[in-house]
Amino acid sequence: MTFKNEHIDKSTPVPMYYQLKNIILQKIESEVLKPGDLLPTEAEFIKIYNLSRTTVRQAILDLVNDGYLYRVKGKGTYVSKPKILQDFMRKLEPYGEQMKRLNLTPKTEVVFFDKMEATSDVAEALNIEVDDTIILLKRLRYANDEPIVFLETYLPESCIDILQEDMEKTGLYEYLSRSKRTKIIRVIRQIEAVGAHIEESEYLKIPQGYPIQMTTTTGYSEEGEPIEYSIAKYRGDKNKFIIELSV
Amino acid sequence: MTFKNEHIDKSTPVPMYYQLKNIILQKIESEVLKPGDLLPTEAEFIKIYNLSRTTVRQAILDLVNDGYLYRVKGKGTYVSKPKILQDFMRKLEPYGEQMKRLNLTPKTEVVFFDKMEATSDVAEALNIEVDDTIILLKRLRYANDEPIVFLETYLPESCIDILQEDMEKTGLYEYLSRSKRTKIIRVIRQIEAVGAHIEESEYLKIPQGYPIQMTTTTGYSEEGEPIEYSIAKYRGDKNKFIIELSV
Repeated sequence: MTFKNEHIDKSTPVPMYYQLKNIILQKIESEVLKPGDLLPTEAEFIKIYNLSRTTVRQAILDLVNDGYLYRVKGKGTYVSKPKILQDFMRKLEPYGEQMKRLNLTPKTEVVFFDKMEATSDVAEALNIEVDDTIILLKRLRYANDEPIVFLETYLPESCIDILQEDMEKTGLYEYLSRSKRTKIIRVIRQIEAVGAHIEESEYLKIPQGYPIQMTTTTGYSEEGEPIEYSIAKYRGDKNKFIIELSV
Repeated sequence: MTFKNEHIDKSTPVPMYYQLKNIILQKIESEVLKPGDLLPTEAEFIKIYNLSRTTVRQAILDLVNDGYLYRVKGKGTYVSKPKILQDFMRKLEPYGEQMKRLNLTPKTEVVFFDKMEATSDVAEALNIEVDDTIILLKRLRYANDEPIVFLETYLPESCIDILQEDMEKTGLYEYLSRSKRTKIIRVIRQIEAVGAHIEESEYLKIPQGYPIQMTTTTGYSEEGEPIEYSIAKYRGDKNKFIIELSV
């Protein structure tokens, strides 16, 4: 039995749900519990540690909210895979290379790729007029066959030739760097935690409202022209990002 | 009447919920709808635009999930304040200065400040042993009297004198910079979107599971010693962050 009746200290001011959470967390981090392992049921935890149902529920809910555990209706609670540590907020690196460095198999699926009319936010970002023609590319990206990020990219009409390209094989920055005019050399990126919309909830296989790490990027050419406006929606439970700051 | 029956185009391939969402969004962004304004009810939207209940619900739900709208039970749906654009992921800047630059009034409330024993994650980050004494400082920070971030900071025992300091008045980095030994000159920060736990849901006045922008920071001294381990939980609907990257 992975869990034993010896860790919860009822005399400390540390809340019991928090102690139980740390017991579970340590077993995940020390790999006593592995991704895909089934957790004991609430009733089992209550019995093992002599805790109330509320305490056990709270510990498990916190770990579900952090992405360490996930629930399957009618089956139970399972250990998630560790989040993928991404460099997306630290450097401009092609997706394929990043996955390769992490020893994961990348895959890109194009789910929409066509001309559209610019909405006001896209027009503002690309410095064009509302209803001007733009190209919209929607991609779903996988790591080891699991969907991890849904990307919407808007490009100005001057990039129209990209519609001929197979964007499941070619990276966006790779394509844009073929011309000095469109090569991205600087990006401004906004970072937000939001709830999943219906569209990405279907692609990323998560419920609506589920935590999403959203980034909104405007990419500029050497001439300072905005060339790319992209919204990336990363599954919160599958990804984390690293940055480094110095004084 | 702010909304009129003239914008939804039922002949385009653009989904109707998405069109309605953009109509609402444009009114927010152009400030026709202002923070605190009450949105028309579902029934009113159905009548104005001749749409189904599902379509109207989806548009509103997406905007709630993004933080543009919020619901008050039994009252209706309101327009949120714009998110605060933070520099927290771009530079090391005291909270007070950042708020001042944004023309917001900062306030810090210390909700816990005492010695503790290190758990395994804290011990690992601070390069000490599990159960070693650490100082835990929990702070709730406000902008214009609204709670926007909940901070947990762990410091090694060598910083014990900080317990004498009034941390509602003194900034952490300001305090640590008084000694060359503890001055933070470099941080490694991890960024994740998670669901709110019970503790921060109470402090930040949001439901459990609500999107939280979490950052986990280890701060290092000039000598390369880890001095600070902090977990910051920003309300997803109140904050966004900006970074800039170049090739």
